Formats: sequence, structure tokens, C-alpha cells
Amino acid sequence: MASTTAALDHGTLARMDAWWRAANYLSVGQIYLLDNPLLKEPLRRSHIKPRLLGHWGTTPGLNFIYVHMNRLIQQQDLSMIFIAGPGHGGPAVVANTWLEGSYSELYADISQDEEGMRRLFRQFSFPGGIPSHAAPETPGSIHEGGELGYALLHAYGAVFDNPDLIACCVVGDGEAETGPLATSWHSNKFLNPRSDGAVLPILHLNGYKIANPAILARISNCELEHLMTGYGYQPHFVEGEDPKVMHALMAAATDAAIVEIRAIQHEARAGGDQSRPLSRPRWPMIILRSPKGWTGPRAVDGRKSEGFWRSHQVPFGEMDNPDHIRLLEDWMHGYGPEALFESDGSLRAELAALAPAGTRRMGANPHANGGTLLRDLRLPDFRDYAVVVPAPGSVRAEATRAMGTYLRDVMRRNMTNFRVFGPDETASNRLGALFEVTDRTWMDARFDYDEHLAPDGRVVEMLSEHACEGWLEGYLLTGRHGLFSCYEAFIHIIDSMFNQHAKWLKVCGEIAWRRPIASLNILLTSHVWRQDHNGFSHQDPGFIDHVVNKKADIIRVYLPPDANTLLVVTDQCLRSRDLVNVIVAGKQPERQWLDMDAAIDHAGAGIGLWEWGCSDQGGEPDIVLAAAGDVPTLEMLAAIDILRELTPELKIRFINVVDLMTLQPREEHPHGLSDAEFVSLFRPATPILFAYHGYPWLIHRLTYRRSNHGNLHVRGYKEEGTTTTPFDMVVLNTLDRFHLVIDVATWVPKLHPRAAHIKQLMRDRLNQHTRYIHAHGEDMPEIRDWAWPARLPGA
Amino acid sequence: MASTTAALDHGTLARMDAWWRAANYLSVGQIYLLDNPLLKEPLRRSHIKPRLLGHWGTTPGLNFIYVHMNRLIQQQDLSMIFIAGPGHGGPAVVANTWLEGSYSELYADISQDEEGMRRLFRQFSFPGGIPSHAAPETPGSIHEGGELGYALLHAYGAVFDNPDLIACCVVGDGEAETGPLATSWHSNKFLNPRSDGAVLPILHLNGYKIANPAILARISNCELEHLMTGYGYQPHFVEGEDPKVMHALMAAATDAAIVEIRAIQHEARAGGDQSRPLSRPRWPMIILRSPKGWTGPRAVDGRKSEGFWRSHQVPFGEMDNPDHIRLLEDWMHGYGPEALFESDGSLRAELAALAPAGTRRMGANPHANGGTLLRDLRLPDFRDYAVVVPAPGSVRAEATRAMGTYLRDVMRRNMTNFRVFGPDETASNRLGALFEVTDRTWMDARFDYDEHLAPDGRVVEMLSEHACEGWLEGYLLTGRHGLFSCYEAFIHIIDSMFNQHAKWLKVCGEIAWRRPIASLNILLTSHVWRQDHNGFSHQDPGFIDHVVNKKADIIRVYLPPDANTLLVVTDQCLRSRDLVNVIVAGKQPERQWLDMDAAIDHAGAGIGLWEWGCSDQGGEPDIVLAAAGDVPTLEMLAAIDILRELTPELKIRFINVVDLMTLQPREEHPHGLSDAEFVSLFRPATPILFAYHGYPWLIHRLTYRRSNHGNLHVRGYKEEGTTTTPFDMVVLNTLDRFHLVIDVATWVPKLHPRAAHIKQLMRDRLNQHTRYIHAHGEDMPEIRDWAWPARLPGA
Repeated sequence: MASTTAALDHGTLARMDAWWRAANYLSVGQIYLLDNPLLKEPLRRSHIKPRLLGHWGTTPGLNFIYVHMNRLIQQQDLSMIFIAGPGHGGPAVVANTWLEGSYSELYADISQDEEGMRRLFRQFSFPGGIPSHAAPETPGSIHEGGELGYALLHAYGAVFDNPDLIACCVVGDGEAETGPLATSWHSNKFLNPRSDGAVLPILHLNGYKIANPAILARISNCELEHLMTGYGYQPHFVEGEDPKVMHALMAAATDAAIVEIRAIQHEARAGGDQSRPLSRPRWPMIILRSPKGWTGPRAVDGRKSEGFWRSHQVPFGEMDNPDHIRLLEDWMHGYGPEALFESDGSLRAELAALAPAGTRRMGANPHANGGTLLRDLRLPDFRDYAVVVPAPGSVRAEATRAMGTYLRDVMRRNMTNFRVFGPDETASNRLGALFEVTDRTWMDARFDYDEHLAPDGRVVEMLSEHACEGWLEGYLLTGRHGLFSCYEAFIHIIDSMFNQHAKWLKVCGEIAWRRPIASLNILLTSHVWRQDHNGFSHQDPGFIDHVVNKKADIIRVYLPPDANTLLVVTDQCLRSRDLVNVIVAGKQPERQWLDMDAAIDHAGAGIGLWEWGCSDQGGEPDIVLAAAGDVPTLEMLAAIDILRELTPELKIRFINVVDLMTLQPREEHPHGLSDAEFVSLFRPATPILFAYHGYPWLIHRLTYRRSNHGNLHVRGYKEEGTTTTPFDMVVLNTLDRFHLVIDVATWVPKLHPRAAHIKQLMRDRLNQHTRYIHAHGEDMPEIRDWAWPARLPGA
Repeated sequence: MASTTAALDHGTLARMDAWWRAANYLSVGQIYLLDNPLLKEPLRRSHIKPRLLGHWGTTPGLNFIYVHMNRLIQQQDLSMIFIAGPGHGGPAVVANTWLEGSYSELYADISQDEEGMRRLFRQFSFPGGIPSHAAPETPGSIHEGGELGYALLHAYGAVFDNPDLIACCVVGDGEAETGPLATSWHSNKFLNPRSDGAVLPILHLNGYKIANPAILARISNCELEHLMTGYGYQPHFVEGEDPKVMHALMAAATDAAIVEIRAIQHEARAGGDQSRPLSRPRWPMIILRSPKGWTGPRAVDGRKSEGFWRSHQVPFGEMDNPDHIRLLEDWMHGYGPEALFESDGSLRAELAALAPAGTRRMGANPHANGGTLLRDLRLPDFRDYAVVVPAPGSVRAEATRAMGTYLRDVMRRNMTNFRVFGPDETASNRLGALFEVTDRTWMDARFDYDEHLAPDGRVVEMLSEHACEGWLEGYLLTGRHGLFSCYEAFIHIIDSMFNQHAKWLKVCGEIAWRRPIASLNILLTSHVWRQDHNGFSHQDPGFIDHVVNKKADIIRVYLPPDANTLLVVTDQCLRSRDLVNVIVAGKQPERQWLDMDAAIDHAGAGIGLWEWGCSDQGGEPDIVLAAAGDVPTLEMLAAIDILRELTPELKIRFINVVDLMTLQPREEHPHGLSDAEFVSLFRPATPILFAYHGYPWLIHRLTYRRSNHGNLHVRGYKEEGTTTTPFDMVVLNTLDRFHLVIDVATWVPKLHPRAAHIKQLMRDRLNQHTRYIHAHGEDMPEIRDWAWPARLPGA
């Protein structure tokens, strides 16, 4: 395992150690001090923050790594970004970017002098200041230090299609226990050394989480080496606590790692022959074992602190105790600030010289502020992919298949900055046209009968929703575009990742220097209503409910009812910025309703009347029937068909909703209808029956402030399901045409004289359905073949 | 790697192969046939299902493993359960339990004869029949084959504290790519060979997912062996496709594995010396590499099928094509049904003899129907842990710390069937009293300064919410009790696991032979309002929203406002069955409101007036003020205090909600108030101001059907936050006392003449707050020290 390298000269080593001490000093200062930043006066209680908030434990390790990366960047002229998996070590990233100057360039107030240092300390975890974690506010960061598990995924996403970029990714030994992190080591199976950059993972074993040892820090080095080898890496161990020894070891290990990365890339790229076969290389990684809270107090009040979990957050905090004030002062003095900073607070010149220049500084690398690099997609005209719909319901099509042909040409025109991610479902979700222009990314063995696998494939499939989401986030945050397609039920696997990304976007919107990035586009197909092979476990439309809890500025939810509206919506989503767009669309052959012109108008408005479905022309409707989603739209139109036969005198208004956010008040969401528009559409006092794709109460939650909300009745998924026929699924949840007609008979006063009769007819049809499917195992032909009758409106 | 074993005698091997063929035959029959189960007639279209739904690819491998486990069980008299990670191979588990007889014992209709076989085939994936996956309906199953990733976690959870149990856990190579599965190999770090049972993981490499190779099937055996060794296992490889060779290899590998398990357990348990030190053993596991769709058609319409992803679901399905009918007939005939079954459809006696007897059959092992083994917890009297509250608000306490002392004694009395799980937060969440009676489970190295680590520790902590949830589910499903404590924001990590468990419970409620199990208890603390160290990324109260989408029969949500109500609620949850109980409670020192008698009454009702907070005695209130959650309760009471000073004439009713489900109509939830009760409490026409812990619209969603919903105004978390002071957090979300007073002044007509004055006073206080925290970094003393004034009601 030992790596050999030219010994680091003593002067460089001493200067690097000094930078490290400076960063440690600044980190402690951020956690503790309000004032007296250079300790020019004896430390007093009033110099110390009243509430001490932050995480010291991981910070010195991050500082140690940062200075070593600076050395590599300078020596090799690297383009590198720094991903701090243990992002709650926020003081470290802030300290280093301040030292290198990138911090003060973005925040002029926090200048590189004594007053700037004072402000730097004060603002940390302080009201009106900055968060305690690496966050959107932190220069050079694309990774929030909140929820753990996604550091490596973000790192790999960042270097896809960025051949010159290296992501130094620190993985904490706590984070390493999470599921997403444990599988994300396998990201190396999807990294093409010819056209992608490199990730340098540094597994940082500081031994402890909040109050517990970490698993990977307590298994033997032998097991750990097996594990990393098994994941496909070449591990380099750096272990110890004596700084001098550790600097030498770390320099040797990082030199070796860079040599290996360069060799792999040279081998893959040499001669420019792009057709030479590639096999998966063994990428280097570093295992850094150093004490938690390294260089902090060895003990506090007689209890072990350095090298133990007690140093996880603030190592001591009873600052009314003079002993603790002395402890802090001695600790900070121990770094020798007078040897690190000039008396005006600026970093000494020979240390400042260690920082890379300009955009080579990790706090100023443009990849970490991806919007600055973002180029618009070259989009084909989505109209060219239209499904021809001569009359409503006259043809069937698979909506996602039409989208697939469009995405194929988006891919063709954007072969270096657009990717599609999914857990092995691109073909199953009918997006297979993509494989006419690209393949699935695959670096490992291939057999002659394999289909669409290649190292330079641009569809990235791994059976891990976490990986798909994390890679896409990393890809977007570094200024590119993409789409994640997923089974609707299992998108809940990344609920929490969505939360974090939505929070990131919300905060970025408040930071001037963060430039807009491409939206996170999620296509949910194989949805709740069509789980014929899988049944109840695959039926959950609740992701929409989860999404709408986040800030309205950030989120959009679309339920296109057919292929052409899906095309319009897709185009719209690919052009948008700084959003999370959720599109729910079926993949099964279904009736098509709108030709392209109608689809453009309808999807553009997000909500509207379908006149050919209405029979209230020239008058007030007796009932408003609304639908959102492809299956509810089908059932509602089929119900209207029945009603027209049974009750031709009934005045019906039919409304279709594509953009769910139109239902919210305009004050709540920028896409919301005004109250006047809403009432004009849904009428002030008419019963409304709404057939909705998901859990019905969401429609109530979006509309409870509307003045006509009291008239609203919603049908949707109420958590009934199993392996059964498609129509039986809607029957089980009373969202089918027959139940909808029963509802209409219940809610329209005009029908009350005939309600009992209508309901009995419908119950007969339902019984007939049940008998039929139990006998034949499939839906009745009249259900399967139902089509919107070709007739004049109102006829 | 080679294992040695006595060669299997030829007769046994031939009989095992015959059983396997029988199971494969029954699996194909389930997927394809409606009738003609023994192929006594030439196969016709009418014998075949109109819709073909199911997954063949993984099924023969599961069948192969099952028969080998049967041999082991018989030979060694093992108590074993079977966990099918690739649970969509449902036909396999159904086929084997039918062959062994356990299926027909539970489902008399599906008898072990020709008519039973016909029904067995027909019911599969058929309306009114059974789902296509291993599911609650499947004998012997504790693991739904829906979402992938949790098989090993369920297996380990099942064997904790079950020293005689072995869980055979098949892990598909698709599932193995998920995050949760990738980290769950580390479960061996928490398995005590003395007091826990064993898991025998079988990694089944059949090479493909839906349309893609699997990662672990394409890396080299060398890397794979490193990986499993690194995870701490001793791998045994079984690879090939010739059944005869494979049976011999599998028998040798399984024999070796059992010998190793027995040796580990003997070593740990020998001599009965419970104090002898234990170290973590290297447990065996098996890597089975066999073709996907093994024994299915090699090719269909000229395209490779066996050994390829095309065999994942139904290998061919154009059954109007006579060639496909012949292909199916030849395929099924190839298993030689006449050599396997008597002409009456029963399994031949010499094959039936391969099945273990009685409860040794994996379909009849009582551990897989945990309710049959469930014993009530021996619970201490929660009243003994009461916090003394002489008057409302007169003392402070940490609610979860009180709960911790109670849990300590629950643990002490139930040291073999109660466990607490959490991601390294038991101490941080103030449940540290548990460590007075037990430790954290830890099998690896320990140092002398470590605290509360031991192999027999009963608090299981790993920084993986997936692991905690999955282990607890496995533990509960096998008839034991437990609690999962988690940071509120990060419980979203297991949103999708919760879905699956809630669905499992819902279906079990409809199956007579599934006996009730202990509820899944989730404590959410370190909640949204107190993330002082962490900020925005740790602020999300949306798990409640997610939970309430599931069936009302299954879910409960409690928001106890103080320590004594938390104790009452905890007792109630630990006694309950077949529920998911979510308890949200703070861990910080907070004012206490109710003495134990009051807490019992209040938590028992779930909702109620606090008379000492009301000033409407003997009259109609001017406003109803309600609160749910500890922080909202504090703020609302502080607002009432201000209102009493400013507007002594105001008639206030104060309502506190512990059980959120009381707000729903009784028709929607069994805990819901009747409409009459609701209106009597909240009044028919009085403005209601509701301070809620989470996203405010949830309260609207629960109450939109109430006749007085139009009067309701809700304040809650609206996705604003950062690292700031606790009081500033509520101010940012306008849930603080001052904003609440402004709301009251807005909504109560009686106050309108003075509203401008009151609002200005409050705005002054808010400005004062903002100035103070920016200057001092902590909340104003008057905020921190506020207490409910000791005075007579209404005075």
C-alpha cells in the first residue's frame, strides 16, 4: 500500500502546517469568538459568544485535507472542487476560503484584515449571519452539510462530462454508514476516464459520530482494505496524529493518487483514438485516519476530548467558568496566531502564496457555481413529435414513448451536457428511443448479446434511486441539464434528498452570486393506476403531497393528460431554471385528446375548459366536472359519455388541470389562478366533482381558501389496491366512470328525481364488471375499447 | 473457497432436483395457466390467462434455494425462515409452501390435489386472487417483494434475540445495488452470536435487472470476494447452470455454511459462561451465480431468453400465436409433471418426504407470523415517572429525558423482547437513562475509554435510518417490541419504508391467520423548532403529512405538549397493536403544564380545553385559540398572557391537541371527534386561531369538512429557517406570541377599535427582539424566562 513520492521539502511542509494552524485558529474563532479575534487582549467572557453552536470534531481534518489539495492544485495546475461530506464542519470551508481570498471577494464586508476576521467570527451561527454548515452561502460548495449520505454522488455527478475536473470528496466515517453512501462507492462503474473527470474520495476516519464509534473506523485495516478493493478502488492509507509525520504521509498519498489518476486518464485518452476499447480502471482513494477534534484540548474537566466523540460539537462551553476561558485562550494561542497573521489580521505573505490563483482556488472554481457555466439546451421543436389526433379520443398512444422520441433528439443535440438517469427503467418507461442515439453507461464486462451498453453511454441506470437523484443533482449544480425518470411509488425513496435540494434552491435564490441552474426534472411514470405486474406495494401517488410542502417559488407539478400535452410540458421544464419540476405521465397506450395546437394552449394555461367535453354552452352548468391526470381524465370523460346518454338535459362543464399549482391562490403560488378566474371557471355555487390522480385531500388542501370550496367533492386514490385489472383499480378507489356518475346523481339537485334509477343502473354495471373480471381475468371489452364518441358538442 | 462435505447421495440429489422441477412447474403454471393444470389435455388458448402478469426470471433460483434449505432443516433440525429479497418471485414461495403443505393448511380451497392446483394457478395475479409478489398473504413471509433494499435488514431484525433461529435471506443482484442493502451487510457488526440467531445471506447473481446487467454480477469474482470479505463475511461461491453439478455445489456450500454457523455459535455459547469476551466472528454467506430464468426457454422468437434480462417478467406472451402455446407446453412438459405429481395432482410421496415437518416448514415457522409468539410487555407504571408540576408552567423539564427513565425500566423488565433503535442519537435525544441498564450493541474493538458499548447491548445505533427502521420492522414482524428514535427532519429518509410497512399492516388486517403484532413506534425529537446547531437543512416537519396519507386504521400521530403527556402517550403506544405511532416531542428544557392526573385525562381524550388557560368561563368565547405541539403550546400560552394584560375583557378559549387524529371526522378516523363534539369545542361561529407544530395546511386538510372550518386560521412552519435563536425560528414563521396576538387583533371584531394599537405594540416587540438577537446572539431574557403567571383563572 505504501506510496513513494519525492519527500516534501521542509520549508513547504512548515508553511503547509502553518496554513493548517491558521485554518484551525479561524475555525475555533468562528465557533467561540465575538471579538478580540487576534487575541491581542487577554480573553474575556465578553469576547465570547453567549450561545456556542457548531461542530469542531471534523473541522481540523477538513482543514488538513484542504491545504493538501491546495498544494496539489498548485503543483499540477488542477481544476478541483472540494466536497465536504462532513459539511457540518462548515467553519473549515469558510476558514480556508477566507484564507485563499475567495470569501472576501464575494463578501466584501468580511475583508482579509482584523476587522474582517472579527466579522468572520461573529457571523458564524449567529442571527443574521451564516449557517453552521457548508451551505449555499459558502463559496466553492455544491453540497449542503445537512443530511448525510450524498457526498460521493454529488462528486461523481459533478465530474461526469467534465474531463478536466477533479472532485476531492471527503467522506466522513459517520456518513459512510448510510445506505446511499455505501452504494455510491459503485459510482466508479459509471465513470468514463476518457470523457469524464475524476473523483478523489478521501474516507476520513476520525473514529466517532455524535456519541458512538464509527463502524469503518473500528473494523480492521485488513477488512477495510478488502472493502475498498472490492468496491474497485486502490486505497492509500494515511494514519497517525503527529502533524509533521502526517503531512509527509498525506503528501505522499495525494501525490500517488494524482499520479494514478493522470496515468488512468492518459491511458484512456492517449493518441486521441476515441474508439479504442476502455475497461474500468482501479481509481485511487485515500483512507485518512486522524483524531477527532485533532489539535483541540486533549481533555476537558478531566474527560478525554481530542480523539473522542466528546469533541464532536463544541468541546466545552461553560464560559462563565474562568478555567474554560483559559482553556480556550491556551488552545487558540497554541496555534501561534502571531506567526500566522500580520498584526493587521491579514495572512502572512509566505502562507498566502500557498493558495492557488484565481479560479483555481476551490472557493472560486466556476464548476461550484454551476450557473456561471450553464449553456441553454439546443432543443428541437417539440411540435415535430406531435401525435396526430384527428378527433378527441380517436387514437391511442403511449405518452412517454412520444416524449422518448423528443428526448432522443434533445440528447442528440446536447451530447456533452444532458443526461438521463433512472433505476433501470428507461426502456420499461417507454423512453427507449434514446437508445437510437446513445447507450447505457457501462464500464464493466460486456457480452456480445448485450444491448445498448457502452462506456460513453449517456443514459445512467443503477438500481438506486438515491444514486440517480444524487448524480443528477451534482450534474445540475455544476451547470448541466438532465432528467430523472422513476416509478411513481419509489420516488419516495428520495423524499429527503428532494427536501435538501429544494432547500438549497430556496436559499440560492436569496444569494446574488449564485447563478441560476437548470431545473431538476423528475418524470414519474409507471404510476399508481397501472401497476398490473406489481400490485399494492407499487401504488403510492404521495410524492406530489410531499413536494407541495416546499416553497412555492421552487416547485411545479404537472399532470399532462396525453402525449401532446406531455411534450409541451417537457419542453417547458427543460427551459426552466432553479425549479423542481415533477411530471406525472402514464406509459400505457391510452386515448389521446388534444392535437398539438390545443395542447399548446391548454398546457400553456395549465388549466382550462375542454369545450368538446362540455354541454353548458350558453348557460350556467349544473355541475362542473374536473380531472387532473391521464387516468382520471379518461374516467371522467367516460362518465360524461354515460351522462349524455342518460341525462341529455344535464349541463356539464368539463375542466382539465395540467398544472396543479393553478389551483392554489395566486398569493400562494405564482402559477395560481386569481380568485376571480377560479370562480369564473368553477362557478360560484355549482357542485364540483374533481377526479384526481393522487390522494384526494391534496385538492382540498390546495383550494380550501377558494370561496366555492364548499361545493367541491374529490375522488382519488384512497389507498386501496392489489394485483388486478386497470379498471378494477379505479373501481376499488371509486374513481371509475360508474362511481363518478353516481356522484353526479348525488350532487346535482336537478337529477334527484331520477337519482335512484341512475345509481341502480351504475351499480348494475359495477356488478357486471366484478363478475366479468373474476371470470375472465381482464376488463370487459366495452371498458377496454371505450372511445369518446364522434359527435357534435352538446348533441 | 472450496468447501468440503460428504457427497450427497444420488437418490437424495435426484429427489431434490425433482422437487425443484415441481416448484418450477408450479411457478410457470401460476404465471400462465387458468386450467388444465397437469397438462392432461393438449394445451389450448382457453387454458391460458388472458393477461400474463408475474416475474419468472428470479423464480427458479428461489426454488433452487428453497429445496436446499429444506434439506438443511431436515438434516439439522433447524428453525429457519425464508426471506425472498427478490420477492416479486412470488410464484416460488407460493409453489414451495403448497408443495410442503403449509399453504393448503391456511387456504383450504387451495388443496393439494388437481383441483387445488388449478385454483393455485388461477388465483395468481388474478382479480380476487393473490398478488404477484411474496406478500402478507404468503405463508412464511415477513417481507413484501415490492420496494427493494430491505431484505437483509428484515433478516437481521428477525434473528435479534432469537438464538435458535436462522434467517435464510436471498439478496437479488438488483436489490444489492440499492443504498439500504449496500449498508445492511454491516448488520453483522450488531449480531451477538451468544444471544442472537444467525442470518445466512445468499447473494443471488442471476445477472440482470429489468433490462440491464447487475453491477455485482459483472465485476470480477476477485473484487466480489474482496467486497464480501471487507463486509466481514466468509463467501462461498456456487456457480454454473448444469442442475446436477449445481445441486452438488449448493449442498456443499450450504453444509459448509451451517458448519461455520454452528461452530461460531458453539464457541460463543459453550460452557454457559456468559461473561467470556466475544469478538465479531466471520459469518458465512453464499454467492449463487445461476442463469436468470433458469430452465426457461433458451430463446423466444430467436432472441436469447434464459440467462438474459428478457426472462425478467413473462418470457413470452403472444398466446394467440400457436407457436407460443407449443413453447409453453414444451417448457412445462420438460419438467416431467407425470414424474412429480400423482394423477390426482398430489406431490409424489418420496418428494413430499423432503419437506420438513410441522412448524419446521418455512411456510409454517411461527416466527414468520410473529403475532402468534407475541407476549405483552411488562410495563412499569408510567405514573411513577411523573414530573412534579405544582402549577402550570412553574417548572421546566426535558420531556424526552422523563421518557428515557420510563424506557429504562421498560427495558429492564423486558430484556429479551424490547429494543431501542436509532441513528446514534439515543443520548443526544435525552434517552440516556437507558444506559443505566444496558449498553449500545457493539461487537467490534472497544477501548477502555469507550462508554456503554457491549456485545449484549440492547440499544442498536447505526448512522443509517434505513437500518434502524428495517431492523425494527424485522423485530416486530417476528413478535417483539421496540422503538425508533430519530431526528424529525431525517425520518423522511424512511418515508418509503414506512409506506411499505403501513401497506403490510393494512393487508394483514384483512387476513385472519395473520395475528396482531406490536406497533411500530417512532419518536421524532430534535424537531423542526430546535435545530440550533444545524439550521435549515434539519428543519422539516413533513413526515406527519406523509403518514396521514395512509389508512386511518393504521396510523396515529401524537404531539404531547409536555413530559407527563409524553409519558401517557408512550405507555399507550407500547400497549397498542398493528399501528404506526408517530410521537413528536422536544428534548430541550421547556415549561411543564400538566400534572400527571391532568395529563392522563388530557392525553386520554387526545384533545381538550385547558381551563386555566381560558377566560370564557360561563360564556361564549370571542376567540378559540388552539395549539398542537410543545413549541406552539408555549407560544400560544405566552400570547394569551399578553392578551390578558392588554385586553382583559377578551373571552378566550384555549384548546390543546395531543392526538392529531381527533381533528378528522369520526367517519374518517376512529379517533376523530364527532361533528357535534368538534363544534361544541371549537364553537360554530367563533374565529379559531390554531398554532401548529408542522406545515399549517395539514390542519386544513384534516378539518375541511368541519362546518366551522371557514373560521379557522392556522400558523405553523412555512419553510423559513436558518441557524438562529429558538425564538427567532418561530418569529421567522410568524408562529411566535407577538404575531399570534396580531392575528387575534385581526380576527376578533370586538378588538378592531384597538387593533391598530395592539398591532403596533407587537411590532415594536418584534423589532426589539430582532435588534436584541443581532446584538447579543441570544433571545431576550424576557423571552427565555417567560413563565405562565401564577394567578387565578380569569383574574
